[in-house]
Amino acid sequence: MSKIMAVNAGSSSLKFQLLEMPEEKVVTKGIVERIGMDDAVFAIEVDGEKKKEVAPIEDHEKAVKILLDKLTKFAIIDSLDEIEGIGHRVVHGGEKFNDSILITDEVIAGIDEVSDLAPLHNPANLVGINAFREILPNIPAVAVFDTAFHQTMPEDSYLYSLPYEYYEKYGIRKYGFHGTSHKYVSERAAEMLGRPVENLRLISCHLGNGASIAAIEGGKSVDTSMGFTPLAGITMGTRSGNIDPSLIPYIMNKADMSAEEVMDVLNKKSGMLALSGFSSDLRDIELKAEEGDKRAELALNVFTSRIHKYIGSYATRMSGLDAVIFTAGIGENSDVIRARVLHGLEFMGIYWDPMLNKTRGKEAFINYPHSPVKVMVIPTNEEVVIARDTVRLGAKS
Amino acid sequence: MSKIMAVNAGSSSLKFQLLEMPEEKVVTKGIVERIGMDDAVFAIEVDGEKKKEVAPIEDHEKAVKILLDKLTKFAIIDSLDEIEGIGHRVVHGGEKFNDSILITDEVIAGIDEVSDLAPLHNPANLVGINAFREILPNIPAVAVFDTAFHQTMPEDSYLYSLPYEYYEKYGIRKYGFHGTSHKYVSERAAEMLGRPVENLRLISCHLGNGASIAAIEGGKSVDTSMGFTPLAGITMGTRSGNIDPSLIPYIMNKADMSAEEVMDVLNKKSGMLALSGFSSDLRDIELKAEEGDKRAELALNVFTSRIHKYIGSYATRMSGLDAVIFTAGIGENSDVIRARVLHGLEFMGIYWDPMLNKTRGKEAFINYPHSPVKVMVIPTNEEVVIARDTVRLGAKS
Repeated sequence: MSKIMAVNAGSSSLKFQLLEMPEEKVVTKGIVERIGMDDAVFAIEVDGEKKKEVAPIEDHEKAVKILLDKLTKFAIIDSLDEIEGIGHRVVHGGEKFNDSILITDEVIAGIDEVSDLAPLHNPANLVGINAFREILPNIPAVAVFDTAFHQTMPEDSYLYSLPYEYYEKYGIRKYGFHGTSHKYVSERAAEMLGRPVENLRLISCHLGNGASIAAIEGGKSVDTSMGFTPLAGITMGTRSGNIDPSLIPYIMNKADMSAEEVMDVLNKKSGMLALSGFSSDLRDIELKAEEGDKRAELALNVFTSRIHKYIGSYATRMSGLDAVIFTAGIGENSDVIRARVLHGLEFMGIYWDPMLNKTRGKEAFINYPHSPVKVMVIPTNEEVVIARDTVRLGAKS
Repeated sequence: MSKIMAVNAGSSSLKFQLLEMPEEKVVTKGIVERIGMDDAVFAIEVDGEKKKEVAPIEDHEKAVKILLDKLTKFAIIDSLDEIEGIGHRVVHGGEKFNDSILITDEVIAGIDEVSDLAPLHNPANLVGINAFREILPNIPAVAVFDTAFHQTMPEDSYLYSLPYEYYEKYGIRKYGFHGTSHKYVSERAAEMLGRPVENLRLISCHLGNGASIAAIEGGKSVDTSMGFTPLAGITMGTRSGNIDPSLIPYIMNKADMSAEEVMDVLNKKSGMLALSGFSSDLRDIELKAEEGDKRAELALNVFTSRIHKYIGSYATRMSGLDAVIFTAGIGENSDVIRARVLHGLEFMGIYWDPMLNKTRGKEAFINYPHSPVKVMVIPTNEEVVIARDTVRLGAKS
């Protein structure tokens, strides 16, 4: 029996979850926020109760030290020796990493090399990796990439119709994200269906504030809606998703903005926030739409019609479909969104049950029993994938 | 019986076709090119024979004068009085024009107003309109817009997930193009199917050097792949189609280009030309692919997989499908492209016959008789739509 720490480091934050393997039981979880500030916040769950402390935390290394201290202090573990591996979420693996990997100096250099592709995320992930390496140098650490699962995409999915040297010289291609989540739910779907994932054609809808759809054939990602960056694809909380590329210079001219300023609008001031005019939070939007707010209704229509069309597109990509999966905050919890997305898909064999669709936040089939294509709600669990890969590659369980 | 002149004016060219209505018979056609140069070219068909002259042509007005002179000189018509209407193709009608319209001073001002949306095309179209007005002021003229047919798209199809004021202030939305062609083939498909267009769900694939797909429900466009400009959508001869919007600033930085220079690459140096590395012409690419050229094969794969996915997407948009239509240069002539696009669509009721698919350039069904969804090749004819609308709105026939 071993404990694995799953870590997700941001530029000023550190999310963690300690799991007991192979049981996949959460021992504790928490987050350190505002690292580098005098009022940093350390939050951890102890016996189901949330403990919180505000104090200065200089850097990620200090954050890691505090975390490890608290683990023994709160008697969550008896000794640090119980931690047999650390799994780090890393956003971008480029074309270099098509699977999780045991972290070495060479791997760190590799993650650094592709930082150009995720300048906001990879350096922050590396800070987290280095902080743990400094303090626990003898515990194996594994990097789990958000892009790795999508490295199986064929060329005609990942290549843009741009000058080929842009791909060779600048690494311009579709990478896709949320890979850990798409992988988890597709494997779980196979278990729930009682069929080998190798024989399945699945569409996974990861719908959170960031959102992406993946076409998964035989357990392998063959296409996904996000692209070179997580901006592409469907409408999201504050992101535009796909737009006519000509709009960027047009907006630059009309609104007198730089390309970077337009990107800021596309990433932070677009999507559901822009369509509704008041919130990026789907729960607010659903409430207002129920009250008859037209812009809220518009936001729901645009959001769901984009997903709807991707389902048709990806079913076609795989010449048919065995199941559609909904996951992440919105996918797991919103029956309103699922109902709109699933509307009118009978022609491709999707027959869903409005009563079963009422489910929230737990694994469930929501199709009618006779439906040729199954429809499933599966809460995602990226930490479990991180812990599994850490056991597989670095730690004994 | 009346003759209608269908005109398509570019910045230095003037394409024309004289049709006898209501028979829709082509009396003559031709093109004036290099207008404004000393070696302008006037080409016209007389009794099936092509006549060509090279001489200086100062401006569009001169070009129109020469054209009208030749019509009587070559005895194509006895007198200009036989021309009872002139129909002008206009690229962009914005939200102002949702149908063709009899040209008045107000209409000309309206076309000028939306020139901002098509700065390369609308001003050139206006030059053509004014040249004919100057010389034949008493003959009714009608403007036929490339965007008008798509004005029936619902909000959730045409709105981008961008700040709503961009739509209100700058007219930023999906307009769609090739409307005249999509309209023609969808009406012709209904006739060929012997069913009212009101009861049909059609996907029209206009595949030429520029290419777009439209979802047409009950005779109305409900979605289309081109967007704010003709750059968006599928891979084209030299256009990229959709890409991750983040790539524009990324390419600007990496290749040290301005936004306009990147747009130039996306419009003129991308698409099939960039993927194949040697040509934007599909015929060249098909030949090379047959010889085993990998980049040619890649170009075919990317091009057809994008179209393939749009078919699934649009079938879903309409909750099912009655027929797929192929038109324009590639759509009418390339059995190779049609075969790849149609591959693996049986799950949605598309069963096509590889033998029938060998057809080129003429109206044909290429599905098996038992196929629930029909597949049709229909040569497009924008001039006929222009002539019909000119008769309907301005001229007696």
